[in-house]
Amino acid sequence: MNKQVVLAERPDGLPKSSTWTFQETEIPEPKDGDVLIKQHYISLDPAMRGWMRDVKSYIPPVGIGDVMRAGTVGEIVKANNHPKFKVGDFLSGWGGVQQYTVTNGKGYFKIDPNKAPLPKFLSIIGMPGMTAYFGILKVAELKEGDIVIVSGAAGAVGSLVGQIAKLKGCRVVGIAGGKDKCYYLVNDLGFDAAIDYKNENIYSGLKKHCPDGIDVFFDNVGGDILDAALSKLRMHARIVICGAISQYNATSRPKGPSNYLSLLVNRGTMKGMVVFDYANQYPEAIEAYSKWLQEGKIKSKEAIYEGIENFHDTFLRLFSGEKLGKLILKVS
Amino acid sequence: MNKQVVLAERPDGLPKSSTWTFQETEIPEPKDGDVLIKQHYISLDPAMRGWMRDVKSYIPPVGIGDVMRAGTVGEIVKANNHPKFKVGDFLSGWGGVQQYTVTNGKGYFKIDPNKAPLPKFLSIIGMPGMTAYFGILKVAELKEGDIVIVSGAAGAVGSLVGQIAKLKGCRVVGIAGGKDKCYYLVNDLGFDAAIDYKNENIYSGLKKHCPDGIDVFFDNVGGDILDAALSKLRMHARIVICGAISQYNATSRPKGPSNYLSLLVNRGTMKGMVVFDYANQYPEAIEAYSKWLQEGKIKSKEAIYEGIENFHDTFLRLFSGEKLGKLILKVS
Repeated sequence: MNKQVVLAERPDGLPKSSTWTFQETEIPEPKDGDVLIKQHYISLDPAMRGWMRDVKSYIPPVGIGDVMRAGTVGEIVKANNHPKFKVGDFLSGWGGVQQYTVTNGKGYFKIDPNKAPLPKFLSIIGMPGMTAYFGILKVAELKEGDIVIVSGAAGAVGSLVGQIAKLKGCRVVGIAGGKDKCYYLVNDLGFDAAIDYKNENIYSGLKKHCPDGIDVFFDNVGGDILDAALSKLRMHARIVICGAISQYNATSRPKGPSNYLSLLVNRGTMKGMVVFDYANQYPEAIEAYSKWLQEGKIKSKEAIYEGIENFHDTFLRLFSGEKLGKLILKVS
Repeated sequence: MNKQVVLAERPDGLPKSSTWTFQETEIPEPKDGDVLIKQHYISLDPAMRGWMRDVKSYIPPVGIGDVMRAGTVGEIVKANNHPKFKVGDFLSGWGGVQQYTVTNGKGYFKIDPNKAPLPKFLSIIGMPGMTAYFGILKVAELKEGDIVIVSGAAGAVGSLVGQIAKLKGCRVVGIAGGKDKCYYLVNDLGFDAAIDYKNENIYSGLKKHCPDGIDVFFDNVGGDILDAALSKLRMHARIVICGAISQYNATSRPKGPSNYLSLLVNRGTMKGMVVFDYANQYPEAIEAYSKWLQEGKIKSKEAIYEGIENFHDTFLRLFSGEKLGKLILKVS
């Protein structure tokens, strides 16, 4: 049988257990030109909360009654005359929150499980890695010597953004929630400093660690953290809006950044990004990461939980902050 | 005697008559290397409200007890060995809200009163003109065919922004307060449409006049108008933050744009500008305006009030919207 998680209703605020229906269906048969993938790992990402909203966005919302959209890695167990893929191939793609997926292969690509452990294909050499790489290098137009702030710094994207900026000769300060995460950023990942937003005032933290202000702010969080960063911009600062996890479960309108006029005063730029725009440049990023990984210059951490029946509780860790690195669910 | 307006206290909210002291002092004598300017016109600009705040900005605040900073045009009536300027020269510069100014000439430049009426040097061929030109062409990176929205569209900057965009082959919709202003935009200045924010819902107006969304939003106003524009962005839209007149007298923190995540969804850019950055390119703009004026392709309107003693009431017209075009005070 194929265990699936289906969107049952659109949540108002934080998803509840009633948001989802868990169901078991027959394992589907691939039709002519299709493959059947047995999924091993499912990627849990903050962006998924956005896909649950019935609003115009960069991607259509997940429909009520549809299997919840999610990135996956798995192995082909059946193939029916597929022109490109065969049984035993490992594929990364949008398999959704389920154990088996039938697909014609569109949007999937083959990965080599000998090159890296499978979860890495959902983390550093997957979407979060691509987001970090193109976000900090292309969108932020990072320059050597920049003073860089990253929010959600211990997360899948933030931890890579900070490490890339360090590799490029920048001063990097991470904002994260809790002592353990902050310790990890400074002692394991080599950040210059970390601000624990759960136990410190962000404004004082920025004043202390960035007395000369900020050139680049890479924002995954939004809310008060975005406002604090805006208050410290240097001339021609760049803000990358990658996400706003603090606002994704808001039941009223999101909090806009009160300090946005700092963009005027400091001739700053605030720019939104969606990683899919860089799809044709992914090979460049994968090559760079492979080199850095080989040389031991970059680290990625995956927080792997087990069991598709634990999807709901695991998903909520994205918003409670109770995980370190890329959140992944093992479903095989 | 020299009538002056001095900043007496920092206002909380809208300036009151007690914000200013009106005083008369002796007309000063120019020292060696100085000139004495008799001012004819004083420029009243929304930015002046910002200069009254004791905060770090792109320019130091006006000190309590100092003559209020303002742009001026006037004529040299005395010169004391000035290396560059002589009696009879007309100068544009930062003379402040007073009838006479002594200066060494730094920051002033000579204008030719035969080329245009003096008030035009505070409007289309002055700061507002420069702001509009570089804001829409360089900061917004305007392209032919763009759908352009301008707020404060009947103001000194907005009216020029819209006309330049029309000259460059764009569709232009202005947002302004009141039927007269909207009539002026469409019938006198050639805007494609106007939205009267005092009598229309801005969201419905944008839906009606920009069914395909917005490529460029040039914002002088902020607040709800910025939020409405954000809700209509097309892919790769650009927002120029030129001002936020709706927020300048706010007694609580300014309203941040709740819809800022539209920048993410649409890969938009929000960029702040200060016109002084383009000082070395002003001649390019002046040449372009002169040509357009000669060809009758562009119009500028000045709302000229008389008497330095009317400074306070006239200044408030910036915020009540009771004026059309560039607000100027005649003081000679």
